[in-house]
Amino acid sequence: MESLQLNRCSINTATLGHREPLDLTIDRIAKAGFGGLAPWRHEVEATDVTKVAKQIRALELNVTSYCRSTYFPAATEQQRLANIQSNVRALNDAAELGAECFVMVVGGLPEGSRDLSAARSQVWDGIGALLDEAGKLGVRLAIEPLHPMYAGERSVINTIGQAHALAHELDPNNGGFLGIAVDVYHCWWEPQLEHAVSSIGQNNRIVAYHVSDWLVPTTDMLLDRGMMGDGVIDLKRFRNIVESAGYSGMVEVEIFSRDSWWTLPPDQVLQTCAYRLQSVC
Amino acid sequence: MESLQLNRCSINTATLGHREPLDLTIDRIAKAGFGGLAPWRHEVEATDVTKVAKQIRALELNVTSYCRSTYFPAATEQQRLANIQSNVRALNDAAELGAECFVMVVGGLPEGSRDLSAARSQVWDGIGALLDEAGKLGVRLAIEPLHPMYAGERSVINTIGQAHALAHELDPNNGGFLGIAVDVYHCWWEPQLEHAVSSIGQNNRIVAYHVSDWLVPTTDMLLDRGMMGDGVIDLKRFRNIVESAGYSGMVEVEIFSRDSWWTLPPDQVLQTCAYRLQSVC
Repeated sequence: MESLQLNRCSINTATLGHREPLDLTIDRIAKAGFGGLAPWRHEVEATDVTKVAKQIRALELNVTSYCRSTYFPAATEQQRLANIQSNVRALNDAAELGAECFVMVVGGLPEGSRDLSAARSQVWDGIGALLDEAGKLGVRLAIEPLHPMYAGERSVINTIGQAHALAHELDPNNGGFLGIAVDVYHCWWEPQLEHAVSSIGQNNRIVAYHVSDWLVPTTDMLLDRGMMGDGVIDLKRFRNIVESAGYSGMVEVEIFSRDSWWTLPPDQVLQTCAYRLQSVC
Repeated sequence: MESLQLNRCSINTATLGHREPLDLTIDRIAKAGFGGLAPWRHEVEATDVTKVAKQIRALELNVTSYCRSTYFPAATEQQRLANIQSNVRALNDAAELGAECFVMVVGGLPEGSRDLSAARSQVWDGIGALLDEAGKLGVRLAIEPLHPMYAGERSVINTIGQAHALAHELDPNNGGFLGIAVDVYHCWWEPQLEHAVSSIGQNNRIVAYHVSDWLVPTTDMLLDRGMMGDGVIDLKRFRNIVESAGYSGMVEVEIFSRDSWWTLPPDQVLQTCAYRLQSVC
């Protein structure tokens, strides 16, 4: 397997801890030689999306993902509809940014609920309600299954197979606007990983590939992801599986690391990402 | 569904934080009206197993589980064999205690390894090596799939379906000594929970049922389990699934809670368990 070239690699801005204005972050990522980035809504919405899009185009960067959906499940019908509307607005920004996909982190159980089935139904309905709009805008929706430890609060979609079943049900003939974001951090443990990835690949559903590492021990369930190479995920094997399944898109680094990487100078973090992408991924 | 009777309920001694000698813990559990308990090896091995067994028999308590196996995966062949031998010794103690099952927490990746497949092979081999001995001693082995957040350090078996496939491969005709321990904390998020439990039930593989709750937020990946009713697991639904699948054994409470329940007086913890078992489980 060939070593990754940086122009095939993208930096999710969360990796730098959102410590600087987005325009500075975009410049740093371009200067470090990466081919793309994945910005977050709160960064884009705090400024002018047209200006951001212009800067990104001028630097010839790809936008590998736009992060991320408002959670779908809600305790009230009014809130449920508001969540969908919020996602429609974000889809418009994703289109303006020319994003490869809009990442769907679907949400967990609504406050006070223990009903996983009901939450999953709301997710089904919510994504279904966005699909037409996504097609019109030309932006792919990327369902991102999250690690099962997030089932309570962040995502009731927790395996690749479950995301695939959802995609197939909503869009059986694959119209091209509903896929899956595969993130090694969430899926590395799956007992049938190769089969699951191969299956979504055969159906042309892989629209993003995110890397980081699983640290042993992990000290925080959200903010202690590792730099590639510092944990226990076999990243070369994982990329081989994803590429064997037909994925030829970019590799996006997404590391939440409050006490480690977010405390270091952004350029040092980017240099380390570049080195690790080329050596261990 | 009928409310649980306490004589169908068991207390895993970890729930009390291992703060007192085992004989005191056993007395407390019996006095509180529970029908069983699940002791840990370090407690039993620190004293005399024959004496413990005698006390338990005199109080007419069931031993719902004996906790737990030495991890199987090892970095060296010598260590791998030593782990199996350690489990054979524990099986003998389980037999003397009259335990319903010996709980197999199978272990994660060996130090320095990123090879999940190799670790899983070692688990296969290790359980296979114990199966004859278990049959001779009349103690069932209970594979306990652990939550995927423990795949790195504690268990490379992370779903009910994966445990089932392992059991079926090693013991295709179900000789009666290889089953699965279903713990709500580890499995509640599974997308096909009902199907998975129903499938192991139809094959008479459910040998233990453990309850606690998943707290939102969870502040520690190991030691922040919730008391039943304090989290987001639909425990009545879960018991209904397990009993509909044919399980009629005991319900064991297993709560690791360093900063909450382990700081409270043991009798108060037992009273709360009793109340919650009868009201929310």
